[in-house]
Amino acid sequence: MTSTPEPPYYAVLFSNQRAAWGDDEADAAYGAAAERMEQLAATIPGYLGIESSRSADGTGITVSYWDTEASIAEWRDHPEHLDVQGRGRTDWYEWYELRVARVERGRSFP
Amino acid sequence: MTSTPEPPYYAVLFSNQRAAWGDDEADAAYGAAAERMEQLAATIPGYLGIESSRSADGTGITVSYWDTEASIAEWRDHPEHLDVQGRGRTDWYEWYELRVARVERGRSFP
Repeated sequence: MTSTPEPPYYAVLFSNQRAAWGDDEADAAYGAAAERMEQLAATIPGYLGIESSRSADGTGITVSYWDTEASIAEWRDHPEHLDVQGRGRTDWYEWYELRVARVERGRSFP
Repeated sequence: MTSTPEPPYYAVLFSNQRAAWGDDEADAAYGAAAERMEQLAATIPGYLGIESSRSADGTGITVSYWDTEASIAEWRDHPEHLDVQGRGRTDWYEWYELRVARVERGRSFP
């Protein structure tokens, strides 16, 4: 669970299908890069949190939360992140959809 | 992959942790209800699509897409959906976070 502040804030929705899913070497390299990217994202001012899920079939959804669009742009353009984005397209993703959305309201349970 | 129209449109982000995860009976009942809810949501005018992922630890993210906030309200208040929401709180979810967001832009690969 990611505790986020009162809206409004922003969410980056990243829906994807892993390529080379189940290949031990690719999965390990991907896992290491994903972990590093989570650590790096958390250093960007305005980062609020991240949630990630991946199903057994290799489809996944990652949502990261940000205070402003400027923070998202800073994250998008971080040099190390840009490198990994390129590697994602060549090696790790069959496809992805990326959406930027403004969170307007929320509620939680319990 | 869910094909969505040109923004703006809306996304309902539902992050959750299953309760009774791994219990065969609960998993089957949950699976049937989830499938039924996907079918029912698709009958609501303004429904654009749904994406869902669940990790081996029982955490999951479901994102449904809608044309307007009015469509989201109609879905939220559908009687059969209200019943299942109640069952979710008593039987199926340890916790959840629900967020309503306005999608402002998107891009896809390939």
